Amino acid sequence: MGEMPIPFGDDVSAFNIGNGRLAILKTDMLVGKTDVPEGMSLWQAARKAVVMNISDFAAKGVKPDVLLVSLGLPRKLKVTDIEEIGRGLNAGVREYGAYVIGGDTGEASDLVISLSLFGLAKKSEVTLRSGARPGDVVAVTGLFGRTCAGLKILLNSVKVPKEIRNVLVESILMPHARLKEGLALNRTGVVTAAIDSSDGLAWSLHEIAGASNVGFLINRLPIADEAKRFSEINKLDSAELALYGGEEYELVLTVKPRLWSRAEEAVREVGGTLLPIGKATAERGILREMDGKKCVIEPRGYEHFKT
Amino acid sequence: MGEMPIPFGDDVSAFNIGNGRLAILKTDMLVGKTDVPEGMSLWQAARKAVVMNISDFAAKGVKPDVLLVSLGLPRKLKVTDIEEIGRGLNAGVREYGAYVIGGDTGEASDLVISLSLFGLAKKSEVTLRSGARPGDVVAVTGLFGRTCAGLKILLNSVKVPKEIRNVLVESILMPHARLKEGLALNRTGVVTAAIDSSDGLAWSLHEIAGASNVGFLINRLPIADEAKRFSEINKLDSAELALYGGEEYELVLTVKPRLWSRAEEAVREVGGTLLPIGKATAERGILREMDGKKCVIEPRGYEHFKT
Repeated sequence: MGEMPIPFGDDVSAFNIGNGRLAILKTDMLVGKTDVPEGMSLWQAARKAVVMNISDFAAKGVKPDVLLVSLGLPRKLKVTDIEEIGRGLNAGVREYGAYVIGGDTGEASDLVISLSLFGLAKKSEVTLRSGARPGDVVAVTGLFGRTCAGLKILLNSVKVPKEIRNVLVESILMPHARLKEGLALNRTGVVTAAIDSSDGLAWSLHEIAGASNVGFLINRLPIADEAKRFSEINKLDSAELALYGGEEYELVLTVKPRLWSRAEEAVREVGGTLLPIGKATAERGILREMDGKKCVIEPRGYEHFKT
Repeated sequence: MGEMPIPFGDDVSAFNIGNGRLAILKTDMLVGKTDVPEGMSLWQAARKAVVMNISDFAAKGVKPDVLLVSLGLPRKLKVTDIEEIGRGLNAGVREYGAYVIGGDTGEASDLVISLSLFGLAKKSEVTLRSGARPGDVVAVTGLFGRTCAGLKILLNSVKVPKEIRNVLVESILMPHARLKEGLALNRTGVVTAAIDSSDGLAWSLHEIAGASNVGFLINRLPIADEAKRFSEINKLDSAELALYGGEEYELVLTVKPRLWSRAEEAVREVGGTLLPIGKATAERGILREMDGKKCVIEPRGYEHFKT
């Protein structure tokens, strides 16, 4: 089996190629039935499949180089549909400075876009999930809750004012990976652990906590204004949307407390924002502090299927 | 886009990692509906998915190092089914000296086993499809026609004597990649072009011919005895089975004529056989010579879906 430079279960896999360098690999599959809601075009689905993979590289601070594409295509698709998928894949990789080097197509009952992303990194420079220490600042690269609302809009007939509808729906149709932020943060060397939030904020916190053997006390839940507004109108709990929504591609990370300003500045310099939301604790468990009271953030997440 | 060290459409893709070295990548997807006939277990299906990818590395003469797995799992599968898939994948990679470094599972309507194989190679040492020259010997690493018969047995109720039934069915259920042969041939440096025969012998010949801008004159069709016997009994043309069957994982390659014995010996040393079947010609077109007459080998192949 040889070495395993990045532990099984982290966001990406790695293979030692010598001289302290790693080949970084990630595979993720988008399936029509579970990942492509009504209202999402094939172009958007293909682009989203790319974003899903890029986001994991972003969390680890690794620049993606090339993409391999494996398509499972239902018979009913036309040549123009397949071209649209190709254009969406290319648009996705170009946004993040990578390109497609090969692939394979076959027939499948349901649309399957299986992608494999490849990049190179120095072994010492990959941000794992496991480095958080008590006292570290917990931070995120953006606000949460929009995607959960957006998905409800696409799937059900819920009430939503015109002025926020678009931003909520777009959060699902046109997600963005925080690659600039992830690379900038990685260069600072002050990030102790990181993950992307595609399975939801709560799940991401639990993953880092488990891998790092710490707990978290969250005192500032990063809820988007549009998610609050949507929740009020539909009598939902906006904290629930922000914690357990998923399909968001923000980074969730921990930073050495005394070097916090360096992390914040690095993200600002690339046009992003880094929001502190709490701190890592020696006691296990993930708690939310609100109005002097503490409640548990459960290890629930956005997952289609668990084995 | 940068460099493209191996042209689009060859068996594998490559990315330049510096110092004349390439990261070699291949992705291939097995889909339940089209690739897993009745009678094939999940263990066998998973192992076959590995063999499909290894076979492409074998053709290029590249040692596979690690595998990434992306599974699309129908809801009806039980945990024991998924474990069986895992065991099949591991059995497959171990046969060829590689191992699994990561992966991802999701839900899908149909079983999808999407694999990505990774290895390293020197840029100057990868055997492409494009190097065949007029006069080169065309050769294969084994006999053809068994898989076509085996698939007919699994799919229909055809007549087949007991003594050959097993070898025909096994050719489908337990395919083998010619990795030893491919690596040994690559080390000789006398192979000018190579491809694996998963889309059928005829298709493979056409692919090499197109990429190398040559033709082929085939005078010794490598038909397995069991395929001849099966064809006689079922009133089929055994040449048809051997040329257009597919799902075979032999290597089809061309060798510099004066260095033929070196290639033959290298394969013999690793326990394989290399069979000459014809020669490359300056005139385009792929012809079969039989009893003094020439007929065209058509560019038909075993493909589930063409775009």
